[in-house]
Amino acid sequence: MSVDLQGTGPRTPGTATRGESVPTVPPASPAASETAVDVTELLERGRTLATPVLRAAVDRLAPPMDTVAAYHFGWIDAAGNPADGDGGKAVRPALAVLSAQAAGAAPEVGVPGAVAVELVHNFSLLHDDLMDGDEQRRHRDTVWKVHGPSQAILVGDALFALAYEVLLETGSVEAGRAARRLTTATRALIDGQAQDISYEHRERVTVAECLEMEGNKTGALLACACSIGAVLGGADDRTADALEKYGYRLGLAFQAVDDLLGIWGDPDATGKQTWSDLRQRKKSLPVVAALAAGGPASERLGRLLAEDAKSSDFENFSEEEFAARAALIEEAGGRDWTAEEARRQHTTAIEALDEIRMPGEVRDQLVALADFVVVRKR
Amino acid sequence: MSVDLQGTGPRTPGTATRGESVPTVPPASPAASETAVDVTELLERGRTLATPVLRAAVDRLAPPMDTVAAYHFGWIDAAGNPADGDGGKAVRPALAVLSAQAAGAAPEVGVPGAVAVELVHNFSLLHDDLMDGDEQRRHRDTVWKVHGPSQAILVGDALFALAYEVLLETGSVEAGRAARRLTTATRALIDGQAQDISYEHRERVTVAECLEMEGNKTGALLACACSIGAVLGGADDRTADALEKYGYRLGLAFQAVDDLLGIWGDPDATGKQTWSDLRQRKKSLPVVAALAAGGPASERLGRLLAEDAKSSDFENFSEEEFAARAALIEEAGGRDWTAEEARRQHTTAIEALDEIRMPGEVRDQLVALADFVVVRKR
Repeated sequence: MSVDLQGTGPRTPGTATRGESVPTVPPASPAASETAVDVTELLERGRTLATPVLRAAVDRLAPPMDTVAAYHFGWIDAAGNPADGDGGKAVRPALAVLSAQAAGAAPEVGVPGAVAVELVHNFSLLHDDLMDGDEQRRHRDTVWKVHGPSQAILVGDALFALAYEVLLETGSVEAGRAARRLTTATRALIDGQAQDISYEHRERVTVAECLEMEGNKTGALLACACSIGAVLGGADDRTADALEKYGYRLGLAFQAVDDLLGIWGDPDATGKQTWSDLRQRKKSLPVVAALAAGGPASERLGRLLAEDAKSSDFENFSEEEFAARAALIEEAGGRDWTAEEARRQHTTAIEALDEIRMPGEVRDQLVALADFVVVRKR
Repeated sequence: MSVDLQGTGPRTPGTATRGESVPTVPPASPAASETAVDVTELLERGRTLATPVLRAAVDRLAPPMDTVAAYHFGWIDAAGNPADGDGGKAVRPALAVLSAQAAGAAPEVGVPGAVAVELVHNFSLLHDDLMDGDEQRRHRDTVWKVHGPSQAILVGDALFALAYEVLLETGSVEAGRAARRLTTATRALIDGQAQDISYEHRERVTVAECLEMEGNKTGALLACACSIGAVLGGADDRTADALEKYGYRLGLAFQAVDDLLGIWGDPDATGKQTWSDLRQRKKSLPVVAALAAGGPASERLGRLLAEDAKSSDFENFSEEEFAARAALIEEAGGRDWTAEEARRQHTTAIEALDEIRMPGEVRDQLVALADFVVVRKR
């Protein structure tokens, strides 16, 4: 299967600015720059509210699963000593808490949703790392590498079950509705991983396929994070659906930026190697967009990547060889198209917020988080 | 850790009848033998009601997960051709459907519960087979063996998510309550697998530990099957709890019989090798009970199994060598104790039914299913 969607390919091939080490994504939207929202504080608040409940939930796991999970979350090191690992950006908990406020409820109302979403996200990391053979995550050895494949499977399963437990144990009607939305997101997440695995074995992936996969892997759970607090706060389906749309689009913007950082990100900021996604032969958005664009650079890139796929020497490629591929992707317009795609999704995300009423302050914060997602450097 | 519970060990060591090829478990209880319940028909009805809904749910999975799941359920063979595989005894669907009737609802009301429980059961089989390295199930190669470890993980995850989707999509308050009970059962199932894995690496397991593990791995989900239909039918917590108790005890009886069949079962009936559990060095109930019994046979068995654990020649052991170990287990009282344990759990299961009111006909059918579970030969 190799049907490229010309229509959705790069619009301005060859116009990329070369030599920059960070992606070109737009400045914050006017709506947010007018207000003074402190995004760091927003993220910190989500983390502060969710982490104690998350830790208490993980503590319920029977040994040795509690220890394995604590290692995964970075709370202890491989030897079992307390650690203060990188828990990630905590965008999802911040969104889940804001989501409750969007429905007029207290931020705390969103916490079981925030924790459930984090548990599902981490279940998928545990299983995906094993399936993909990834040995490192957040600068540390992955769970299957330290504790073995069985523990990665088992603890992933346990976090999955725990997500529904945390959500449903309040016994409220809202919790049942929230769990239903979480189920939809989880199924999409699994579909996305299935697509990711199947694309690995294919020479060509279309832009549409790549976007669908990223929507499943990143968009769906972010959509759930953005609606789950509101559902727990008693929001109607129309409100929850609009918030989901915001979250889904935000997820696509997030992933487009991730794909840019995966190639042109600053290693000091991302903590990844240079040209990280190219080294892993990832068919990420800039690559598929460049291949779909047509033209001399696109064709040269296609021939080069086809040769690379057969090369036995790929692992010993020099910095320059990867840089040459990155330059071709850029020349074919893959970098610009992806940055523009992030902008487009950012815009539609914010438009979704206009479909519903919510406190102005909450809207500003959601806009600020959307801005943060597209301008971040890690 | 090697604390044996003498008090819960075999009560009548050395009195087992040797040379029988089937376990000694009591005849059907008087209550059921007085009525004329056709258990085969009951099982068939559960299967007939649940299978179409189960197949429709599995059909929702994105390729290739739908195919992998269909292979697992025995609906197609490894080449993708339609097959009519052994779908198991279908005790759980029959119980879930009866459970709805116990609450005065129509059998159909229990179907989403029956399907959800089957999906959770099969998620655990997919993952457990991979973790345990089991290459065969129901006379066929396991999923990880045919489709690879990633598909076993992924499709297991998908069935897990599908279980909650099927249950919650009705959107009823009862579905939320049912999902909550399913969560408890799923968490216990995972705890049981964690215990099973950790016991593999230990020389000694107590009878209490073995019972706890079997309660988690078999009892909890059977408990859920027995209550989920009633919950969907609007039963109160007291009714659901009593049905859970019946199911949990029934699960322990079921597992005790399974453990007897795992050593002394007729290979033609079970489809397993002779002395199957001994070949796999399983620390099943007859073994741990025999080791806990004390006395000359128990001590000889302990020394022999300790030697076996170090033996490099274990895989080439003859029929006679396994038969000698089985005879020692029997002489130490492990076989009798396990048969008695099945009887005890069977009795307490039926006693739990007396705690609540239900139509007499439904009660007779639940009793008949309990009888079936302890007298079955496969």
